[in-house]
Amino acid sequence: MEYIKNFNVRNERNLTMLVDFYELTMGNGYFSSGIENKIAYFDMFFRRVPDGGGYCIMAGLQQLIEYLNNLSFSKEDIEYLRSKNIFSEEFLNYLKDFKFCCDVWAIPEGNPVFPNEPLVTVRGPIIQAQFVETMILLSINHQTLIATKANRICRAADGRSVMEFGSRRAQGYDGAIYGARAAIIGGCNSTACTIAEQMFGVPSAGTMAHSWVQLFPTEYEAFETWAKAYPDNCVLLIDTYNVLKSGLPNAIKVFDDILKPKGYRPKGIRIDSGDITYLSIKCREMLDEAGYEDVKIIVSNSLDEYIIRSVLRQGAKIDGFGVGERLITARSEPVFGGVYKLVAIEDNHAIVPKIKISENEEKITNPGFKKVYRIFDKETDKAIADLITLNDEIIDENKPLTLFDPVFTWKKKKVKNFYAKELLVQIFDKGNLVYDCPDVLEISKVAESESEKLWHEVLRFENPHNYYVDLSHKLWSIKHNLINKYSSIYNEEE
Amino acid sequence: MEYIKNFNVRNERNLTMLVDFYELTMGNGYFSSGIENKIAYFDMFFRRVPDGGGYCIMAGLQQLIEYLNNLSFSKEDIEYLRSKNIFSEEFLNYLKDFKFCCDVWAIPEGNPVFPNEPLVTVRGPIIQAQFVETMILLSINHQTLIATKANRICRAADGRSVMEFGSRRAQGYDGAIYGARAAIIGGCNSTACTIAEQMFGVPSAGTMAHSWVQLFPTEYEAFETWAKAYPDNCVLLIDTYNVLKSGLPNAIKVFDDILKPKGYRPKGIRIDSGDITYLSIKCREMLDEAGYEDVKIIVSNSLDEYIIRSVLRQGAKIDGFGVGERLITARSEPVFGGVYKLVAIEDNHAIVPKIKISENEEKITNPGFKKVYRIFDKETDKAIADLITLNDEIIDENKPLTLFDPVFTWKKKKVKNFYAKELLVQIFDKGNLVYDCPDVLEISKVAESESEKLWHEVLRFENPHNYYVDLSHKLWSIKHNLINKYSSIYNEEE
Repeated sequence: MEYIKNFNVRNERNLTMLVDFYELTMGNGYFSSGIENKIAYFDMFFRRVPDGGGYCIMAGLQQLIEYLNNLSFSKEDIEYLRSKNIFSEEFLNYLKDFKFCCDVWAIPEGNPVFPNEPLVTVRGPIIQAQFVETMILLSINHQTLIATKANRICRAADGRSVMEFGSRRAQGYDGAIYGARAAIIGGCNSTACTIAEQMFGVPSAGTMAHSWVQLFPTEYEAFETWAKAYPDNCVLLIDTYNVLKSGLPNAIKVFDDILKPKGYRPKGIRIDSGDITYLSIKCREMLDEAGYEDVKIIVSNSLDEYIIRSVLRQGAKIDGFGVGERLITARSEPVFGGVYKLVAIEDNHAIVPKIKISENEEKITNPGFKKVYRIFDKETDKAIADLITLNDEIIDENKPLTLFDPVFTWKKKKVKNFYAKELLVQIFDKGNLVYDCPDVLEISKVAESESEKLWHEVLRFENPHNYYVDLSHKLWSIKHNLINKYSSIYNEEE
Repeated sequence: MEYIKNFNVRNERNLTMLVDFYELTMGNGYFSSGIENKIAYFDMFFRRVPDGGGYCIMAGLQQLIEYLNNLSFSKEDIEYLRSKNIFSEEFLNYLKDFKFCCDVWAIPEGNPVFPNEPLVTVRGPIIQAQFVETMILLSINHQTLIATKANRICRAADGRSVMEFGSRRAQGYDGAIYGARAAIIGGCNSTACTIAEQMFGVPSAGTMAHSWVQLFPTEYEAFETWAKAYPDNCVLLIDTYNVLKSGLPNAIKVFDDILKPKGYRPKGIRIDSGDITYLSIKCREMLDEAGYEDVKIIVSNSLDEYIIRSVLRQGAKIDGFGVGERLITARSEPVFGGVYKLVAIEDNHAIVPKIKISENEEKITNPGFKKVYRIFDKETDKAIADLITLNDEIIDENKPLTLFDPVFTWKKKKVKNFYAKELLVQIFDKGNLVYDCPDVLEISKVAESESEKLWHEVLRFENPHNYYVDLSHKLWSIKHNLINKYSSIYNEEE
């Protein structure tokens, strides 16, 4: 299937003004205090894997890149901002001629990612690096949430096909479109969202609604008409009236009457309600008896990873799952809590690490301009840990590497015979795009092959092994010196 | 604030292809069987109020109207569909010249709506009336979900201001933009989503992030710089280091040092972490002691209706709430389960009601072409019940009206001294738009005034009174005849 590589040009929107208003008040504030060009470093990261899972699947980078590459204020935007009567003309002039000039690094889409490591790092004038916060978070939070959920659902389906069916219950149009994209990245085989195929070249698919069956005087006539229209790709929805007494008998009759004489094999039946374990077992028996052992049974109806796992354990005979609202909204945990934090500034060309202190220890940020290495065992090719270092640190693969827990520092591990892969790649160099986005289907292969490099214990649904995300000794020292500095200021009176 | 009424023209997208693929396979199927112009009636309705609430707030109609009014297939769309090799040239030609010609009725935005009543009714050639399913559901499901959640949160805030802060955690760009629109409809005072002000004329607002404070050598300098930039609208974020030992003392010092000498009054402080009940009470005391009784206390940090109600009960001193991820994703229940069902067809110009049977009684549809009346008590102006009738039924306000429960039919109520308001208004007449969309702020006034017409028992958060949605005797009879017909077909062998 060829798709329109630049399809979204036709649908291009200027989302520059999709920004939290405080980015603008701060931007104006930098100007009025003359610090708009101070160089700042921000990290985007998350603190917790949704649904208690062991890892997330990075997604949403391509849309973020398109946004950053097209960032510009129209005349109408400037006029609108002027009408608010709080922005200086100097600031508005700056926006009028806005040219994105930051450096951006990111972990490519499809990679498994873990809490507290930078997924995106931005370096540039504070006025720009701050401005892009909303869209960085919005782009990565949304698609990473859905790709991660899809990945869980596909693991539950255990090799069976999973189709994304959720457009009608998505949270807005982009929720449907980019949700379908993220679902494919996470492992879905296809989507019902037609425009997603057009935009991203991901396979779209679909058959019939109950209304098709209701429209005809009888279910048999509805199926007969469908089989004549789609003899070589016939999938019938059999639960409009009664699956076992009406739907399946009518389907088998139409397979026999219409398809068999012309030499066509039916493709499948779909069940969208009722007890899918019981019905699928019964349908399998009836189909097999009628000589349709190769006809697939597809089920849908408010499925998620828990229900899929449960019905498969009970012996349901299902070949494919259509998953809708619980995937497209990540219903069990619909918020991906990515944050964007200042981690350093430059003073006289020296990098000064910054930290955000919190009484909640997990909320204390990792300061400084950093790199993320993934450490792999050379023999098994399995990922052992991620190691966050300062940006100028280099890992010598020929020497043993000592990893230690950043909280319980006595927990140490010496690693030999490993290789280290840098996860963050440069996306923008002083505002110039230097990265080529892969196709969605390529990204979904990355997700598959890189997830396979995680130990089974990390892939587990419940209480997975906590994958190690450690800090280099140098980074750990900087962080703890900063924590001590602030705690001595605010706690000494006690 | 003037806004750009036709702003979205600049951002116009063609969403015609945002459609479940099965709408297209069915469309092609109607053609190949020669029934594409059969007249069909579809209802969009929902079955359950999210979060166990008593009612929903209708929203999303304007975006649905824009979609229907712009429905057209481009050359690229047709080429793409042809490349799938399953659609007939006859069908593709039809799409090429597609002109929307359906009648559409809908309940205007802002109105309280209840389970099982049609929110949108479409009448037209089956090929068109079926095609629009995905976008009708997507538009109404999303915004009704968020408007309903916002309405709950604002009721919890009990007259205090609620600001929508959730863009960064929304599910996609439209999740942020139209979510902000729906939040205002539901009762929020403002949004942080700048583009929503530009598009819909709803007020946007915002102050500073923690990064502003971190950027400066000291918190005092950060506040000082802000106060100088925004002397007449100064709101300071006081929780970057320590609210009571650092943030508030520095804020008060800046109010005294910078604003007071120039005759400015500070506007507020914001707390984004920690125990907001305790901190807000302490901050109120310290502000009052310092002579800042009029300075507002704004709080944010993962709030929803439950937390807001709880902290207010504990005596928190809060003037305004910033509500983010739990509003913009409706986190506690992120799916609005609206459905779109065939309810009738025309045969020789006669309307033939259709029903979808289900073993789950609640899933049985209300057949026929219908109207919805809201029955108000003339004396109190409170809503007594909604009554669904056939389209040709007229309610005589001068005669007593007998309402009865559609399941427990012996539960009857005779209503006198009432007036009946038709809820569904015509939006499209044979494809021509005949409805003028009100502004978002007008819609939010409708939501406020129409919710006030509900009894307190319906407004309750937990176990609200089940508002009556009854059927006319004529409609009830048609429904039960159809149910009996199908159940006699499929159950007689047992």
